[in-house]
Amino acid sequence: MADEAPFQFLHNEVIQYIYKSADSEDTEHGGNISTLENMGCRVGQGLVERLTKDTARFKDELDIMKFVCKDFWTCVFKKQIDNLRTNHQGIYVLQDNKFRLLSQLSAGKQYLEHAPKYLAFSCGLVRGALTNLGVKSIVTAEVSVMPACKFQIMIQKM
Amino acid sequence: MADEAPFQFLHNEVIQYIYKSADSEDTEHGGNISTLENMGCRVGQGLVERLTKDTARFKDELDIMKFVCKDFWTCVFKKQIDNLRTNHQGIYVLQDNKFRLLSQLSAGKQYLEHAPKYLAFSCGLVRGALTNLGVKSIVTAEVSVMPACKFQIMIQKM
Repeated sequence: MADEAPFQFLHNEVIQYIYKSADSEDTEHGGNISTLENMGCRVGQGLVERLTKDTARFKDELDIMKFVCKDFWTCVFKKQIDNLRTNHQGIYVLQDNKFRLLSQLSAGKQYLEHAPKYLAFSCGLVRGALTNLGVKSIVTAEVSVMPACKFQIMIQKM
Repeated sequence: MADEAPFQFLHNEVIQYIYKSADSEDTEHGGNISTLENMGCRVGQGLVERLTKDTARFKDELDIMKFVCKDFWTCVFKKQIDNLRTNHQGIYVLQDNKFRLLSQLSAGKQYLEHAPKYLAFSCGLVRGALTNLGVKSIVTAEVSVMPACKFQIMIQKM
């Protein structure tokens, strides 16, 4: 029952706080987004360390992605990613048809402009998780109709 | 597995962020504590609304406290309060022998001075939960040896 609720409510508070405290000093929109993204990154790093404590070494990049879509996603969002696609050239698209951190916003297109601040933390989360699994990446998110959401991962070759 | 980990890691990040961003503008120690406390209060209010959606009306104050110690605590911290005591005159003491938000800090007395910032959010959480159940209160926390923790609730009669 409501297992992810404390995380969800705290996440909302963090967004409110960061946007409020930034009003006075940092009027750049990008500043808040990257604050949230960095916060997510550190949480992702911590989580993945705890989650992989007892798992076997991953075979390859795709194996890592499957882990993120299943175990990692379930730990944070209490469901798996609904669809994983790749072009086999370093781009992965993770589709979540009912993304938890958007589920409290009205469905549809009305609040679409507010989506980025509700996704920045999660983009960081994925980036942090991948970083600690040895995969450097850029993660972006895209919403066309709430609460569905697509995360695009671009692998940065070392 | 690690069900409360996302919440725990995010909570740690929030503390770091609030203390860092306040360094420059707000040197008052109390400012950060009350920011965390207020954040907790709003999260507590939201959570209790969701949790009590389908429960029967509470009989009395003690019944409300039992709900906080069991259902509410389990939702947030994945365990119940270990001991509830009251003087039957409006003071309740909730003892958690292994408080989750302190469990990542070294046990014992070494980091005792850092305890208040790890407890402020949870004090607010309890206050917010009680407020939305119609009980006005002041909540404080006390640690003698980590990770055990006592929350004291003083009911404010209307």
